Amino acid sequence: MNITYTALLFLLLAITFSASGQEPISAITMPENLDQGKVELGKKLFFDPRLSKSGWISCNSCHNLMLSGTDNLVSSIGHQWAQGPINSPTVFNAVYSIAQFWDGRAKDLVDQAGGPIANPGEMASSHELAVSVLQTIPGYISEFNEVFDDDEITIDMVTDSIAEFERTLVTPNSRFDQWLQGDTNALTELELDGYRLFKLTGCAGCHNGPAVGGQAYQKMGSFNRFETENTAIGRQGVTGLRTDRMRFKVPTLRNIELTYPYFHDGSVRTLEEAVDTMAWVQLNRTFSRTGNEKVVAFLRSLSGDLPRIVLPILPPSGPDTPDPQPFE
Amino acid sequence: MNITYTALLFLLLAITFSASGQEPISAITMPENLDQGKVELGKKLFFDPRLSKSGWISCNSCHNLMLSGTDNLVSSIGHQWAQGPINSPTVFNAVYSIAQFWDGRAKDLVDQAGGPIANPGEMASSHELAVSVLQTIPGYISEFNEVFDDDEITIDMVTDSIAEFERTLVTPNSRFDQWLQGDTNALTELELDGYRLFKLTGCAGCHNGPAVGGQAYQKMGSFNRFETENTAIGRQGVTGLRTDRMRFKVPTLRNIELTYPYFHDGSVRTLEEAVDTMAWVQLNRTFSRTGNEKVVAFLRSLSGDLPRIVLPILPPSGPDTPDPQPFE
Repeated sequence: MNITYTALLFLLLAITFSASGQEPISAITMPENLDQGKVELGKKLFFDPRLSKSGWISCNSCHNLMLSGTDNLVSSIGHQWAQGPINSPTVFNAVYSIAQFWDGRAKDLVDQAGGPIANPGEMASSHELAVSVLQTIPGYISEFNEVFDDDEITIDMVTDSIAEFERTLVTPNSRFDQWLQGDTNALTELELDGYRLFKLTGCAGCHNGPAVGGQAYQKMGSFNRFETENTAIGRQGVTGLRTDRMRFKVPTLRNIELTYPYFHDGSVRTLEEAVDTMAWVQLNRTFSRTGNEKVVAFLRSLSGDLPRIVLPILPPSGPDTPDPQPFE
Repeated sequence: MNITYTALLFLLLAITFSASGQEPISAITMPENLDQGKVELGKKLFFDPRLSKSGWISCNSCHNLMLSGTDNLVSSIGHQWAQGPINSPTVFNAVYSIAQFWDGRAKDLVDQAGGPIANPGEMASSHELAVSVLQTIPGYISEFNEVFDDDEITIDMVTDSIAEFERTLVTPNSRFDQWLQGDTNALTELELDGYRLFKLTGCAGCHNGPAVGGQAYQKMGSFNRFETENTAIGRQGVTGLRTDRMRFKVPTLRNIELTYPYFHDGSVRTLEEAVDTMAWVQLNRTFSRTGNEKVVAFLRSLSGDLPRIVLPILPPSGPDTPDPQPFE
């Protein structure tokens, strides 16, 4: 009842946006006031597999910056090939989310970065081990010292640096953003029709803001049941509230054509099917074939410029660096 | 008997080099006559995990260009966390080797590139599957077409492109090369002493050429037995000859301070120990502590400039691209 009410509220909000002429989506802007030293250090750490117990899994393993900031797998692969419980969300534009992880259990990027390192089914290290690895790598000791003016490395410095790098992982300049910023030729009629439908039918009630999502929690299956074999319970795991069962953070739709497969269970492979499923379970609607085509065309216009990243050269381990333990 | 003779021959050769004033090591030069289109395509393929069955393992997983062109593990991790049988050799300067793999079973980089893709314990795909994946990715179809002027992608085009990219993975401008090219201040006295010892004691008999190795097969344990739990038999697996038992391709010493752990079994973690082991098993020698220090100092001068690589953006899969199968 409460959840249906929320959904209706968002629908009304969407109609309001639509009628007011104010757009529910804002353009992506490049981050400002970055600490460049921290960004460069965070980039190294993001790509460094030595933050994992095996010495083989890095942040980039599941949030692959060469693909779409995800691994494009149904669910991720972790230490000793553990099967992850949920689809990896993209790291691109994650900075715009109200919280991190599908259930929002991390309040921000800094808080998030520590999770996978110590998760036995992901990187399977511990904060202590990760720090003791970094603390014995001469190149890191000097770089942390330069950035934080401190001889001792802490896990907070590690997550702070990774988060600072992740703030740079935004994707501006999509054709949709060009249109938002006044280039009336940036979108085709089909795409514009799709955007109108997206607003009128209520999609924009949840998928709004710069990331076209990430701003709220919503029940997966507000109107009709979402069939899944995935056992994730969503926000209830964080709040303990029964009413939060199956409520997940609304995912970003930026670069959505790249971040397949879709939904927290990764069960849907195509954008066409994802749109139809969402319309039905969240909005109790059935798009016509043309309607679906229009919305999908609009969604494809949300793909922006992926960041141009020079591969970092990682500093070599020292003689006292703990050995990776891939098979133990 | 035959093998001891070979070792002595190399020792004599080394002394000849040393006496003649002609250096047994030559500087690394940048590759010429590259097909840039092929290089760019090969770079994408090198980093693309969709060449593996799981969609998660790429060439870069074990030949990590951010580390040392290796994974710095004792032995590599493959599909479903399979433990590899041997230490991953670095891909940097691999172009200079007479053949590829420790046992030389691939005649060149092109021949090598197809191996791991289809190895059940590595990427666990097949050449057919890998091609059918690429052939359904629109961005690859057009790029292969542009490079090879052919609508149909073949595994030979795939390995040819990867090899062309790998030709660019050389590491020029080490301090040792600067010295070779006339900068007499590029090396310290300790390093120069180490180089003299390296030649006089016979190391340069096998470790020579631009890659300081990769030019010949040698028995691991020419003089004294090399104790190992690793079951690799080396070149015998290729030729079937009993005399080739435990003969391996001499590894490159370029960037050796980065490519730990050492030997085909990855059993040795430090350069100091590796030098002592090699002196004993290959040359029947024991270095003094100072001698060891000198040779190690020389070896560290072999680290060159690692290539500056811009991360490729990989083209998204199409609707007909076979799904990755990580857990099947």
